[in-house]
Amino acid sequence: MATVEQTPGTSGKSDTPGKYKVIGTRPVRHDGVDKVTGRARYGADVRMTGQLEGFILRSPHAHARIRSIDVSEAEKVPGVRAVVTNADLPDPGDRIAELGEGAVNMKHLATNVLAGDRVLYRGHAIAAVAADNRHIAEEAARLIKVEYEKCPPVLDVREAMSDEAPRLHDDVYTKELGETVGETPSNIAQRIYYEKGDVDAGFAQADLIVEREFRTATVHQGYIEPHTSTALWNADDHVTIWTSTQGTFTVRQQCAELLDLPVSDIRVVPMEIGGGFGGKISVYEQPVAALLSKKSGRPVRVTMDRTDVLEATGPTPGSFIRVKLGVTKEGRITAGEAWLAYEAGAYPGSPINPGCMCIFACYDVPAGRIEGFDVCVNKPRTNAYRAPGSTNAAFAIETVIDEICEKLDICPLEFRMQNAAKEGTRRIDGYRFPRIGLYETLEAIKQSDHWNTPLEGPNRGRGIGCGFWFNAGLKSSVTVTVNSDGKISLIEGSTDIGGTRTSIAMQLAETLGISVDDINPSVVDTDSVGYTDVTGGSRVTLATGLAAYEAGLKVRDQFCQHAARIWGVTPEDVEYSDGGVNGPDGKRFEFRELASRIQQTGEPVSASASVSAPASSNAFGTHCVDVEVDPDTGKVTILRYTAVQDAGTAIHPSYVEGQMQGGAAQGIGWALNEEYYYDAEGVLRNSSLLDYRMPTCYDLPMIDTIIVEVPNPDHPYGVRGVGEVPICPPPAAIGAAIANATGVRMHELPMSPPRLLHQILAQRES
Amino acid sequence: MATVEQTPGTSGKSDTPGKYKVIGTRPVRHDGVDKVTGRARYGADVRMTGQLEGFILRSPHAHARIRSIDVSEAEKVPGVRAVVTNADLPDPGDRIAELGEGAVNMKHLATNVLAGDRVLYRGHAIAAVAADNRHIAEEAARLIKVEYEKCPPVLDVREAMSDEAPRLHDDVYTKELGETVGETPSNIAQRIYYEKGDVDAGFAQADLIVEREFRTATVHQGYIEPHTSTALWNADDHVTIWTSTQGTFTVRQQCAELLDLPVSDIRVVPMEIGGGFGGKISVYEQPVAALLSKKSGRPVRVTMDRTDVLEATGPTPGSFIRVKLGVTKEGRITAGEAWLAYEAGAYPGSPINPGCMCIFACYDVPAGRIEGFDVCVNKPRTNAYRAPGSTNAAFAIETVIDEICEKLDICPLEFRMQNAAKEGTRRIDGYRFPRIGLYETLEAIKQSDHWNTPLEGPNRGRGIGCGFWFNAGLKSSVTVTVNSDGKISLIEGSTDIGGTRTSIAMQLAETLGISVDDINPSVVDTDSVGYTDVTGGSRVTLATGLAAYEAGLKVRDQFCQHAARIWGVTPEDVEYSDGGVNGPDGKRFEFRELASRIQQTGEPVSASASVSAPASSNAFGTHCVDVEVDPDTGKVTILRYTAVQDAGTAIHPSYVEGQMQGGAAQGIGWALNEEYYYDAEGVLRNSSLLDYRMPTCYDLPMIDTIIVEVPNPDHPYGVRGVGEVPICPPPAAIGAAIANATGVRMHELPMSPPRLLHQILAQRES
Repeated sequence: MATVEQTPGTSGKSDTPGKYKVIGTRPVRHDGVDKVTGRARYGADVRMTGQLEGFILRSPHAHARIRSIDVSEAEKVPGVRAVVTNADLPDPGDRIAELGEGAVNMKHLATNVLAGDRVLYRGHAIAAVAADNRHIAEEAARLIKVEYEKCPPVLDVREAMSDEAPRLHDDVYTKELGETVGETPSNIAQRIYYEKGDVDAGFAQADLIVEREFRTATVHQGYIEPHTSTALWNADDHVTIWTSTQGTFTVRQQCAELLDLPVSDIRVVPMEIGGGFGGKISVYEQPVAALLSKKSGRPVRVTMDRTDVLEATGPTPGSFIRVKLGVTKEGRITAGEAWLAYEAGAYPGSPINPGCMCIFACYDVPAGRIEGFDVCVNKPRTNAYRAPGSTNAAFAIETVIDEICEKLDICPLEFRMQNAAKEGTRRIDGYRFPRIGLYETLEAIKQSDHWNTPLEGPNRGRGIGCGFWFNAGLKSSVTVTVNSDGKISLIEGSTDIGGTRTSIAMQLAETLGISVDDINPSVVDTDSVGYTDVTGGSRVTLATGLAAYEAGLKVRDQFCQHAARIWGVTPEDVEYSDGGVNGPDGKRFEFRELASRIQQTGEPVSASASVSAPASSNAFGTHCVDVEVDPDTGKVTILRYTAVQDAGTAIHPSYVEGQMQGGAAQGIGWALNEEYYYDAEGVLRNSSLLDYRMPTCYDLPMIDTIIVEVPNPDHPYGVRGVGEVPICPPPAAIGAAIANATGVRMHELPMSPPRLLHQILAQRES
Repeated sequence: MATVEQTPGTSGKSDTPGKYKVIGTRPVRHDGVDKVTGRARYGADVRMTGQLEGFILRSPHAHARIRSIDVSEAEKVPGVRAVVTNADLPDPGDRIAELGEGAVNMKHLATNVLAGDRVLYRGHAIAAVAADNRHIAEEAARLIKVEYEKCPPVLDVREAMSDEAPRLHDDVYTKELGETVGETPSNIAQRIYYEKGDVDAGFAQADLIVEREFRTATVHQGYIEPHTSTALWNADDHVTIWTSTQGTFTVRQQCAELLDLPVSDIRVVPMEIGGGFGGKISVYEQPVAALLSKKSGRPVRVTMDRTDVLEATGPTPGSFIRVKLGVTKEGRITAGEAWLAYEAGAYPGSPINPGCMCIFACYDVPAGRIEGFDVCVNKPRTNAYRAPGSTNAAFAIETVIDEICEKLDICPLEFRMQNAAKEGTRRIDGYRFPRIGLYETLEAIKQSDHWNTPLEGPNRGRGIGCGFWFNAGLKSSVTVTVNSDGKISLIEGSTDIGGTRTSIAMQLAETLGISVDDINPSVVDTDSVGYTDVTGGSRVTLATGLAAYEAGLKVRDQFCQHAARIWGVTPEDVEYSDGGVNGPDGKRFEFRELASRIQQTGEPVSASASVSAPASSNAFGTHCVDVEVDPDTGKVTILRYTAVQDAGTAIHPSYVEGQMQGGAAQGIGWALNEEYYYDAEGVLRNSSLLDYRMPTCYDLPMIDTIIVEVPNPDHPYGVRGVGEVPICPPPAAIGAAIANATGVRMHELPMSPPRLLHQILAQRES
């Protein structure tokens, strides 16, 4: 079933040869020329007649009550056209809105966009000014008088859980299964609990039980392009928003809720996007720009700077995790237990639930319990970041497994092959896996050149780690129109982050048996295509690809009808086959030929398709890494890195490899360097890309990739989606490699030079 | 069948009450706010980073050979980025291309866009410059050295037909039925001939035969917005063109042919359009802007000024027509004969064929013959203008009929009612009419307040006239998507000149039984919707409305499927009815309710529909006018004007009335003042709107309208289309009124003060 191929750096095509004509090839991306020549238009490229620039005033404090805001001096500045505060937002009341990704407390969303009577983190937006240029807006914003009453901040997730901790909200009570369980307001917004089997009995069967505690730092997605949006509030109360976003329909829906408009009165125009990784889903500056436009009557652009992005958008949560695992001496897992506390940031909503569901997902754990907490702290409201919640969890469980393997002297690869989740394995949260490909990724590592090449030299070590992500289905729509030259316009609602224009076009080309170069994909605004969910959850190639497939079938159908009409036979007498239509007596139209004839003979060919794709295509990956540790500085050098992943089917192998490499690179950054560094007052001390240390090309070797293909049975082309899994394994794999190199086992991220050096020195002393 | 209602100025709704819920109402247009607040973006509003301005150098001569063009000095001017001439266009060879509206000689189209070795009219484009601003471009263009060899121009259609006339082309031979019949090159590009019945016998039966000759001047559509386009030729040879056009797909196709690109590599983005009336279909500056962009690597905008528009775009042809009509003394037509010569302008392609088909179309002429000629003269290449070719013909035939009625002392209304074409009448060109509404328009005049109010006073007269236009069908596509708030996005390819966003949306609303305010129409680019023919031929409300109807049926179907799924019944158990879905046991979903449920329960609802609409919905109108003639100056004042038309079904009566009023106003201008005034050298002497005299509100009374509704049997809502017919009757009706007032019968347009005064004085002298 699964086939494997490896080429260092970029692997070759890995699918069954001959099965597909287009799928599995590596065409040049349709938007490539625009991207490399600078023609592609990003959010900040929007320029309109009379356009104003907006500037957002932000809180210098991590936690304070706002006594008053006086904007009168700012409004007097020549060139200032509008000043807005939270008072300009319609009152959201106590509404809980369903916003695509789930229930959202509207008051929280509104006060995150523009603070109400409290600021909850350094950088919290308080007011915004629109002026003839950014300098005027910035100067005017400085004249806004905000009277604060400072409160002590709480920045650590476990401190925040204590009853004595400063409390962020008066209206947040602990919830469990959707019900309020706490009697007093709490920083703990949610408690999750899953249990399976007889856990105590499971641990009793164990020959070895390892229990460890882990901490991971708050890290940011680090996309290159800061958030930027331009809004025009028209005289008829129709609003247009040009923005770089992962989800135009999500922006539309959130803005509709916040601005109290019907969704149909908002049009969101997607600009090209300079990275998102989950961080460009929720709205920040969009409703602010809209309010400024409403008040000024002019189009208004609001662009963040890097400090705004780091201080005030949605990083992934810092976390505390305790994992306990019991195994037999043969290395068979008998029971597991996990306790996870994730920082929600200023408002409830960390990915604690996926964290809980992912932590044991790679393994067949016969009995286990998982307890998780969503906890508010005085940091920006967290948001999705590539497999949100899973990387934190993977660091913990995979590190424990590596230690167990060390203790039992079992090969960590064999241990994982023995315990790997497979078709039929039931997770602790109850979900039973269909056909999945984790085992095949382990096998691929086992056969790899990397694994089979001994690592030599001092201070060097090798580690492996696995990762899991569900992958989403959700809704997607496309429209397909056939031109007289036989080429096709493909209209889609999925913003293109990772090359999905091409991966969707390839599936349409495959369905129609034509060249992908004959398909011209466009990502259009929310008025111009059917409802399409966010670009995220590794779902676009899967779900929008499915919509393209469905539309392709409709085109085939219409082509058959046209051919039948031309030949004077019934549609039953004709058949779409191999890029054309076959009729009786050897009659045949090639696609282009018939497309050209249709122009003369009848109605044009167009088709729309909207799908609600099946969820949970279940993606797994295994990574292998060699490191060298400098014992004098604690610096870790990545010597060699191989990422393996089950892609289901790799539509465009280069993009699959790119996702694997990009995810691994981000995971390496998270593992070794990246962290939000707050002082005791809750001020972010490294809010620039000089100080917030992401890996560059000097820090990384070429990341080798091996694509494994265990087709997803729920997709016509077997697609699983690939974007998220590759960020999960690196921290644990690197941690294992460090332990292998130094004997020091790290339980806190990032494993930065000072932190590692500290452990190395402590080990020497002990 | 037909119902009639009159309100002076704006008539009321005239359809059977209760038949429709949305059709026949008068909602505010969706684009209204943008238009009145100045937010609507027209062609010249396009601004891009690095955009250049283009300027086109034009011929000062009406006819000359180009010996050489030297652009070297122009290229040296600082700020000049590109200079192009015809040599930069791919060689079109001898290709005849099918360009939507029919076969087009590519060499002619190419040399009209940028002259080859000849200039054929004053203002003929020769070269173009793109520079950092328009002033630089204009200055540089003056440095282009063009060596001319002047040739004598020929400006009159009959002179041009003579063998001695200066010849415009070496490659144009007379064609008949598509076959070349001439042996030597000729200014006569085409001869048309139709015959029906025994014409000589018909004339022999006549008691009275009147034969008269008519001349009509070249007139321009006079749209407010000059032509303007911006083009970006991308590094991957994909071209985007932003333009104000009646047909984005026509621009795409013509540019593809001229630039030798596949249609799919060109994207045409429609901007709002400030009038077209047929004149914004063919390309002029679009391929020039594209070439300048290709050469400069930058986006280039080319905007004409008013003189360019008048001198070098496509006015409607001047013509010479001879009509002979035989009638019995009871006023029954026995035979007709017409000889028509239309000025094609510089290149073949006048609307001579429709002129021939229209001239007798209003009447049941038992026997007749029609001969027509398409003749090249040294004027700009003519183009479509509202019922192209029909107004010239109507002026001739209707004037002859009025004279016959005068001579036989028969009421001109009764004469027309007696001879009116009706269902089953066969035109001389062979076409047999289905159900049509001419007779009903005559009846409506007969019952009108205007007709029944005696006209009193000296120098005053009343006249009537009829008009006919086929109305086109052609191809249209729409895509419809349903939003969760129950509102609908309607994506269409028909550029909106006369309110068709709303008239199409109304048909969709009617089909779905919802409010038109819940439909949000967008006109999108050629990549984003299925193939859609030009906005022209009075076809959009008919054909794109039909596509909207078809898409509506698909939405109804999907709604039924969703409702069945929710209720757990089969789709056969549910029925779409009156803006919702009915199920068993009194179950019911209103549209909005179900739209909102669908967001949670399944795939989104979207539907595309492409149609090839039936042609020839056959529209007729009858106008009645009262005039007063100043016998000392020849000035004609319109005292009262009533336009009647069979709209089939008036979707939005206000827009139908607006079309009738606008068409009548243009017809009045053509009748009384408008003409291209050339000197003997072929230089247009009135190339500004000060000198080219269009009627203003000071020249016109309120034009009353009466909508007659004889539903088109080929359309689900009976639509016929209304835009073109109302320009046809005014010249003849006004001519009849002048004759009635003064006894002077005019045979030349315009019936301007000096020309009429001349006739009045001649009459006094005789």
